Formats: sequence, C-alpha cells, structure tokens
Amino acid sequence: MSKPNVRDQLITASLATLHSKGFNATSVQDITDAAGVPKGSFYNHFASKEVLGAEVVQHYAEASRRLHGPLTDASLAPLARLAQYFDGMVQANVDNQFHSGCLLGNFSTELSAQSPLIRAQVERAFQQWSDGLAAVISLAQQEGSVASTDSAAALADAVLQAWQGAVARARTAHSRAPLDLFRHTTLRKLLQ
Amino acid sequence: MSKPNVRDQLITASLATLHSKGFNATSVQDITDAAGVPKGSFYNHFASKEVLGAEVVQHYAEASRRLHGPLTDASLAPLARLAQYFDGMVQANVDNQFHSGCLLGNFSTELSAQSPLIRAQVERAFQQWSDGLAAVISLAQQEGSVASTDSAAALADAVLQAWQGAVARARTAHSRAPLDLFRHTTLRKLLQ
Repeated sequence: MSKPNVRDQLITASLATLHSKGFNATSVQDITDAAGVPKGSFYNHFASKEVLGAEVVQHYAEASRRLHGPLTDASLAPLARLAQYFDGMVQANVDNQFHSGCLLGNFSTELSAQSPLIRAQVERAFQQWSDGLAAVISLAQQEGSVASTDSAAALADAVLQAWQGAVARARTAHSRAPLDLFRHTTLRKLLQ
Repeated sequence: MSKPNVRDQLITASLATLHSKGFNATSVQDITDAAGVPKGSFYNHFASKEVLGAEVVQHYAEASRRLHGPLTDASLAPLARLAQYFDGMVQANVDNQFHSGCLLGNFSTELSAQSPLIRAQVERAFQQWSDGLAAVISLAQQEGSVASTDSAAALADAVLQAWQGAVARARTAHSRAPLDLFRHTTLRKLLQ
C-alpha cells in the first residue's frame, strides 16, 4: 500500500520544479531528489510522470484559489473585486520575476498535444477559473456596471485568455508592462 | 566549413518537430532523423540545440509573414484588414486541429526561464508582429474607426496577447470556440 505522506511529498515537491522548468525538462529523478525520497519509490505512488503531472495541475489549481479571495468579497463592488484580484495576480508574477508564469498556461502549450490526460485537467482548471470570474462579471452586469451584450461566461473566457497571453508576454519581455497593459487597458475594454 | 544546404535542411526539418512536440521533448537525434542526416553532422552546423532553436524562431517568424498579406492590402479598410488577417489565423489553427498552436507562444512558456537566447528571439518576433498590427491600428485611428484613447502600440500588444491566450485555450479545449471568441468579441472590444 502506498504511504500517503510520500505521495503528498512527491506532489508538493514536484510542483515547484514542474512549474519553473516545465514537464519535459523535469525527470523523475529531479522529482524524487526534490522530495528527498529514493527514485525507486516514485512508481509505488504514480504509474507515470504523466499521472503525477495531472495531479499537480489539480493541486496547483486548488492552491491558486488562495488568491481568489477578492472575487467573493461582498464588501467590494463587482468591478472592484476583479481589479483587486488581478492586482494580486500581477503582483504575484512580479514577485516571481516573470520566471515561472502560470502552470496551467505552461502546460497548455507544452502538453496539450502530448498528454490527453493533462490537457483535460488543464481545461477543467481553466473552466473552473473562468466560472469564478463569470460569477463576478454576472453581478456587474446585474448592477449595470458591465454591458450585457456578451454573456458573463464569454467575457470571463475572454478575460482569462487575455490574462494568459499577458503572463506569457511578460516572460519574454521580462517586464511587468504586459501585465499592466492587461490590468489597465484590456480588462477595462473587455468589461466596458 | 559547414555545408549551407545541410544547415538549412536541419532548420526546416526541425521546425515541424519543435513546433508540434516542443523543445525539450525533441532530441538532437529526432532532428537529424527528420532531416535525414547523420546525428554527428548536427554539431558541424550548430553549437547546440539551443542555437538551432533560436534560428528556428526567426525562420518561423519569417515564414508566418506569408499570412500577413491582408494587413498591408490597401484595397481594404484598416479594420477589414485585421478581420481578414485573423480569419486566416483562426483557419490555420482549425486546419491544424489545434495541435501545435503558435511556436512563439509555445517557446514563450516553455523556454523563457531556460534560455535567455531563445527568450530574446521570441520577444523580438513578438515585437515585430505587434509593430505590424500597430501600423494597421494606427491607420484605423487616423480614419476614426478605432478610438485614440490608447496608443496603437498598446492596442496591438493587447490584441497579440489576447490572441496568444486564445490559441493556448483552443488547444486545451480542443475547440475553435476560444479562437472565435477572440475574433468576434475580444478583437471588437479592444478596437472599439
């Protein structure tokens, strides 16, 4: 029987490595080294690096929800919630010096063709993320601060896509300018 | 002295593999196999896979300009040029069944932290691409079909970022819906 603590250790330890180096540049040996467990123990817990990768996506998506606080802060108007949420997201990327980007974005481009399993997990995480944004945009539409011409779900997807592109461009530009452009121009225009 | 024809063969043959499989999942052996040349000959032409990767980015950016025709088609109004250009880009991704995405987007997320050389090449290609879009947006601003509140350069960057995010999401969703959302909602809102 697998020991749950080693399993959790492998997920937690591999997250940072997979996030910063990517999936294919990370070996099982890198992961077991990071977790401080013997290499042989990996396959007691995961059938493959791919299976681990899919669990890491879920783990990352859950952990990222700690930044979602402003989205459900009833003391703020809907647009203020979105502004505060993305201020936090911009800051998280600046603090990281644009080094790792978003694990979901990274895996979307690196692994969509390679792993149907991971692709499905990333899509699920994007969908949940978009649903969270759509709930706030829908409130904004109800109070009239966002036009109702497009559905809240469509606007949320558009916001999330633009955010992913901004994070990727911040990495090549090695600059916060693409994130600020998203925050102050794209977000405003999409939610007019 | 290196033979130019083998060098070009290596660049051309590696492009498809690097585009669809990614950089770290492609070995030098994969590249020489695809080019039909002996593995040992690779290092007569490139100091490393990274140096080849940087040249492939340039090659890809130049080859992609074949789709840029509508942007400079003086018979079309500026907004019609952008619409026709992105119709072509959407179709190219649909034809590819969302399999490979955009090489620049793929490398931006996979390699920005790993290779300063490739990161710089990708950023340069993004900048040139954005400049091409900005020229058309600037014409649209001159004729009044796009508001001049934001600079053409900023709007072009916002459009390009949103496009990159749409391509990535189309890959996880395995659907053209994110591309259509960009084309019919995001593009319209950014260029209002």
